[in-house]
Amino acid sequence: MFPPLREELRGLEPYGAPQLDVPVQLNVNENPYGPSPACVADIADAVATAATTLNRYPDREFVALRTALADYLARDTPHGIVPEQVWAANGSNEVMLQLLQAFGGPGRTALSFAPTYSMYPEYARDTMTRWVAGRRAEDFTLDLDAARALVEAERPSVVLLPSPNNPTGTALPPEAVALLCEAVGEDGVLVVDEAYGEFRRTGTPSALELLPHHRNLVVSRTMSKAFAGAGLRLGYLAADPAICDAIRVVRLPYHLSSVTQATALAALRHTEELLGQVDRLREERDRTVAWLRAQGHQVADSDANFCLFGTFPDRHAVWQGLLDHGVLVREVGPEGWLRVSIGTPDEMAAFRTALTQVTGQTPPQAPKETT
Amino acid sequence: MFPPLREELRGLEPYGAPQLDVPVQLNVNENPYGPSPACVADIADAVATAATTLNRYPDREFVALRTALADYLARDTPHGIVPEQVWAANGSNEVMLQLLQAFGGPGRTALSFAPTYSMYPEYARDTMTRWVAGRRAEDFTLDLDAARALVEAERPSVVLLPSPNNPTGTALPPEAVALLCEAVGEDGVLVVDEAYGEFRRTGTPSALELLPHHRNLVVSRTMSKAFAGAGLRLGYLAADPAICDAIRVVRLPYHLSSVTQATALAALRHTEELLGQVDRLREERDRTVAWLRAQGHQVADSDANFCLFGTFPDRHAVWQGLLDHGVLVREVGPEGWLRVSIGTPDEMAAFRTALTQVTGQTPPQAPKETT
Repeated sequence: MFPPLREELRGLEPYGAPQLDVPVQLNVNENPYGPSPACVADIADAVATAATTLNRYPDREFVALRTALADYLARDTPHGIVPEQVWAANGSNEVMLQLLQAFGGPGRTALSFAPTYSMYPEYARDTMTRWVAGRRAEDFTLDLDAARALVEAERPSVVLLPSPNNPTGTALPPEAVALLCEAVGEDGVLVVDEAYGEFRRTGTPSALELLPHHRNLVVSRTMSKAFAGAGLRLGYLAADPAICDAIRVVRLPYHLSSVTQATALAALRHTEELLGQVDRLREERDRTVAWLRAQGHQVADSDANFCLFGTFPDRHAVWQGLLDHGVLVREVGPEGWLRVSIGTPDEMAAFRTALTQVTGQTPPQAPKETT
Repeated sequence: MFPPLREELRGLEPYGAPQLDVPVQLNVNENPYGPSPACVADIADAVATAATTLNRYPDREFVALRTALADYLARDTPHGIVPEQVWAANGSNEVMLQLLQAFGGPGRTALSFAPTYSMYPEYARDTMTRWVAGRRAEDFTLDLDAARALVEAERPSVVLLPSPNNPTGTALPPEAVALLCEAVGEDGVLVVDEAYGEFRRTGTPSALELLPHHRNLVVSRTMSKAFAGAGLRLGYLAADPAICDAIRVVRLPYHLSSVTQATALAALRHTEELLGQVDRLREERDRTVAWLRAQGHQVADSDANFCLFGTFPDRHAVWQGLLDHGVLVREVGPEGWLRVSIGTPDEMAAFRTALTQVTGQTPPQAPKETT
C-alpha cells in the first residue's frame, strides 16, 4: 500500500484543533493579548541583528537563552535555577518528544492520568513507548494512593503530570509531586507540565520549589501561554543538569534557530509587561468561573487560562450553537463538558451572551420582557 | 543508573562539530556570505508583522511558505511543483526524522552508502529503524549493480542518498536515481538529499526532474546552504502529495513557528541575490579543486560547497596544523581525507597559505630563498 506508512499510523488524522475563522476564538488556550508595540519592536531589532549572521549555524547550546530562562524561573523558587538546569526546544511538544526519546522507548512505559492532554499518547506512540493512562477522581484531582499504586505496578520510566491539568484546569498539590517522585524512583522521571503554570491561583506553588529535593523531577514550561508566544514555539524545562545532558544525546543538532533564540530573548526582556497581562487573565478567569457557576453550570476549579464547564446532555449541540453565534470553544475532555479559553473582557462577554442564548436561559441583566 | 537514559544511548556524545572560535571557519559548510542589508531589513519587517500576532498559533499547514517553496523548486524541473508536493520542518534534520518516523521504525530498515552524512544513522537510531550501510566505490560513486543488489536483498523502506554526497561532494547521476527508485518499489521511499543541490556543476540535473516518473521519490533541500540560512533551520522536500500527507500524521502540531515562516518567506523574496552568491561559491569551489590538484593532492569531484582532499598519512596533524594557522577544516570521511568548506576568496587564500605551510611545500609564487 502506497505510501508505505507504518501500519499503526494508517488512517490516523494529524493532531490539531479545527482552525476556523470565527470572530471569538476561545478554543486553543491562546493568550488574547498580543505583544505590545515596544515588545514587537524589540523582537524585530533582535531578529535583524541575528539575521546579519543567518548564514552561520545557531549557538547549539543556546547559552544566552538558557541563562535568561533560568533567571526567569528563579522567580518561582527560593532555591534559584542555574542555566545548566534548563533545556529548551521548539515548543513543549518537542521537549516532551525529547524526554520520551531519552527516557522512554521500546520496552519502557509512560504514564499519565486521564482526562489529560491528548498529545501525551502521541509522544509515546512516536517513540514506541508503552502508554498507560490511570484515571483521575470524579473532581479531576488525583487519588494519591491509587496513583502511587499504579506507578508501583507499572514502573513507568516517564510520568507526565500537567499542573494545572489540561483540559480540566486542576493543579497538583506539592505533596502529590513529592509522593509520586518517590514512587517513580531513579529508574524514571516525573514531568510536571506547567504549560499554564503562570496562571495558577495565589497560594498554589510551582513544582520548581521541589527541584532540590527530587533529582528525578522535571518541570516544563512554555512561552506559548503566559508569554503570549504561541507563534514562537518555545518550550523549556528545569531539571537536574544530568537530565539536560541526557537530552542532548537525542536532540537534533542546532534544533533552536538563531531567529527563535533572538525572539525568545527579546520577549523575556518584556516579562513584566507580559506577566501583567497574565494577572488580568487570572482575574477574568475567576470572573468566568463565578459567572458560570451562578448560571447553574458545573465548573472544574481552574488554575489555568481556561475552564472546563458542563455538563450538557448534548455538548456538541452547545458547541455548535456557540459557533453559530461566532464563539469557538473546544469540544474536549470527558463526555458532556466543554472547555473555554479565557479571552479579553469583550470576548468573554460575547461568550456569556452566546451561552445564555444557546442554553435558553435569560441573558444576565437583561430587561424584563413586557409581553 | 541515574539519569535513566535508554541503555543504547549511554555514553554517546551529542552530534556536532567542535565549535571553535577561529578566524577562518571552513568546517561546517556554511555559506560565507550573510544576507544583504536589504534582505536583513525585509526579514526584520516580516518578523515584526508576524510578532504582532505572536500570541496566536502559527499556520499549521504553512500554506504561504509551501507555495513559495514550490515556486522556487519549479526552477529546477520542467514539470512544475505544486504546494501539495512540498513539506518543510525545522532543518533537514527534522525532515529526515519525520520521514523515518513515518516510513521507518521497528522492523523496518533504512539504507545508505558510506562514506556519507554521519547524521543518517542517528535518525535511524532515534526511530528504532534498522540501519544498513553499503559501500561507495573507491572514487565515491555508486556501483549501481551492487547498490541495486543490496536494495533487493535488504528491502529498505527508506533509502537515503545525498546528491551531492556529504562529505565527498559526489553527485548522483539521474539513471542511478531512476534505477534505485525501481529497486525500492512501493514498499519504500528513496530520499535524494539535495542539501547542497544548488551548488551542482553545470550539466548535473536535479532529481526534481524525475518526480513525475517515480511516486516513491523524495527530494529534500535546505535553506541552510544556498540560502545562507544555517541559522534559520528550514529544511524542506518535494514528493508525491500522498507522502506529504503521510508525514502530517507524525509531525508535531505547529512545528514551524510564525517567526520561522516569516523569515523563510522573506529570504525567498531575495532568491536572485542569494543564488548570485551561490554562483560565486561554485567558481571558488572549482578554483579550489584545481589549486589542490595542482599541488599534487587528490580531490574528489565536487558538486557541493566543499571539497574532500587528501590523502594524508596523519590527517589529524594536518587538521591541527591548519587550526594553528587559524583555519578550521573538518576531520571527517574516510581515513586520510579532510573536508574544506568553500569560503570567501580571502578565506580560501588563507586556507591555501596555511595548507602550503603545514604540508611543507613552497608557498605558491613565493620568492626563492637565497640561503
